Amino acid sequence: MVDSTGVGQGAFERDSRYITTRITRDGQDGYPVEPGRYRLVVSRACPWANRATIVRRLLGLESVLSLGVCGPTHDERSWTFDLDPGGVDPVLGIKRLQQAYFARDPDYPRGITVPAIVDERTGAVVTNDFPQLTLDLSTQWTEFHRPGAPVLYPEPLRAEIDEVNRRVYTEVNNGVYRCGFAGDQDAYDKAFTRLFDALDWLEDRLRERRFLVGDTITEADVRLFTTLARFDPVYHGHFKCNLRKLAEMPVLWAYARDLFQTPGFGDTIDFVQIKRHYYQVHTGINPTGIVPDGPDLANWFTPHGREALGGRPFGDGTAPPTPPVDEMRTADWTIERDGAR
Amino acid sequence: MVDSTGVGQGAFERDSRYITTRITRDGQDGYPVEPGRYRLVVSRACPWANRATIVRRLLGLESVLSLGVCGPTHDERSWTFDLDPGGVDPVLGIKRLQQAYFARDPDYPRGITVPAIVDERTGAVVTNDFPQLTLDLSTQWTEFHRPGAPVLYPEPLRAEIDEVNRRVYTEVNNGVYRCGFAGDQDAYDKAFTRLFDALDWLEDRLRERRFLVGDTITEADVRLFTTLARFDPVYHGHFKCNLRKLAEMPVLWAYARDLFQTPGFGDTIDFVQIKRHYYQVHTGINPTGIVPDGPDLANWFTPHGREALGGRPFGDGTAPPTPPVDEMRTADWTIERDGAR
Repeated sequence: MVDSTGVGQGAFERDSRYITTRITRDGQDGYPVEPGRYRLVVSRACPWANRATIVRRLLGLESVLSLGVCGPTHDERSWTFDLDPGGVDPVLGIKRLQQAYFARDPDYPRGITVPAIVDERTGAVVTNDFPQLTLDLSTQWTEFHRPGAPVLYPEPLRAEIDEVNRRVYTEVNNGVYRCGFAGDQDAYDKAFTRLFDALDWLEDRLRERRFLVGDTITEADVRLFTTLARFDPVYHGHFKCNLRKLAEMPVLWAYARDLFQTPGFGDTIDFVQIKRHYYQVHTGINPTGIVPDGPDLANWFTPHGREALGGRPFGDGTAPPTPPVDEMRTADWTIERDGAR
Repeated sequence: MVDSTGVGQGAFERDSRYITTRITRDGQDGYPVEPGRYRLVVSRACPWANRATIVRRLLGLESVLSLGVCGPTHDERSWTFDLDPGGVDPVLGIKRLQQAYFARDPDYPRGITVPAIVDERTGAVVTNDFPQLTLDLSTQWTEFHRPGAPVLYPEPLRAEIDEVNRRVYTEVNNGVYRCGFAGDQDAYDKAFTRLFDALDWLEDRLRERRFLVGDTITEADVRLFTTLARFDPVYHGHFKCNLRKLAEMPVLWAYARDLFQTPGFGDTIDFVQIKRHYYQVHTGINPTGIVPDGPDLANWFTPHGREALGGRPFGDGTAPPTPPVDEMRTADWTIERDGAR
């Protein structure tokens, strides 16, 4: 989502005017759910895109919704397919994600962001509305979910999930950016206080319960997880979110490891790409572009002990996803590289 | 010591050509030890100057060697007396430390650094040779040490102290700067590895012994301490020394707290000024000048348990220094402000 290289004036405000076209079962916006028609374009670095890669894995949508992966760094024209042979996405046949946005609207005026879902027939972006995108994967694509897929947005819990999501989004997911992109000390100080107040709230909430809402993994956990995974490698230092490391918040740290060690979560994480993205793209706050060699990330695999709290990660009789089958490399690889020392 | 605002090309190299005139008992360089004649000029922010403020406190030299304190931030003309009324040092009558350097040499070509000792009669810098400066306080000013002052540089241990000091200086004291001021990724990577290798060595060395050399506090402990005190507030994030926090290295962390809680050490530390200096002066690596609100520093006062290792901090029958009597504010004040949130 980040297309800024740094900081502006005063408090950071995210441009949240997205392309809100939805892909639905009834095709109300002209884009019906259809296997093999759409391509989910992400960057492994991006926390907002990471939501979609996790949900796609948990629901087993890999074979019906293909995946395009942009590289971790980009210039002012935003994300490119530099990881692919020849720098071209093999399905869309483009070098820059920008081209898919311009296919939708030649005068597209806003940020070129991931995640985006592109219609493979036209090469045009259908939506980049990330908060709605994952909910639609859960509720509109049910026909194509893997057998026994978890219910990530269960009807009876939606009000509570929405409420938790709201606070997690404003204070945590976006809160770290408000710290890092604050234009002055006062804006930073306010953002910092709000962030750690919210983390205190989460530390309390998760002390006696294994997951955020109900006793299974839901969309709420997915959304919190993507920020926690980036906290110590990036936000703590780069965004000055440094009252404590995640590893110094015992409840949240165990909660994050519990999810990380669950198939569908940790195997979407590439710490090397995550670090490269933030430290190399945001020259406004890291002008040297040097990427820190720390922290030691091997500790993500240590026992978390959260099983003792009960909870049924996927619900009764629901199996975890099978290992990744497509472009998503496993986290083991990157941790091995990154935490080696 | 830092007069750079950021980074250069490749590996960082410190300009270590200092004014090596010594103040000695025999006055060999024309500057005999003499109470009331000299002024030690420091900044509380600077780790090299911090050595001298600690040694002065431990030896009880406050009444014979006066103290001038520069503010934590400065411009390209370096340190100023902006903390003093009217921005003028009350004894030297100058606004910029540069003036004392020019009084010594009108064409003084190198960095305007602290610590510096100034002859109050002439207003000229006598020395800024910080490695020798503290040793001379220990060995040349003995006549004026407080009754029962500790022996920080004992004859029988000098070879071992010198050897430890050499490694601590190149790998740790200056090693953090080599990380932070590296001009490229390769130089940073090398500096990072060397730093944490040395911290591993120290973690081992201090596991079974309370102090670095012998069983009392020596110059070696003073020199390591000033870097450890700045590690989590500054070097971990600002200089990318982030494999682990000091608080995640159990032996070194307990060792650092043991010293911090010893009179003469923690009462020379001002975390607010330390953080302001690094984050506001080094615009080359922190262009926004925003100072992080973390980490929580209240934990410096937690029990360290190092008494169990034995050791006699000041030696038998030697009392710790009395509370600070001059311009040095106590650490309690700054921790209260800084760790408050």
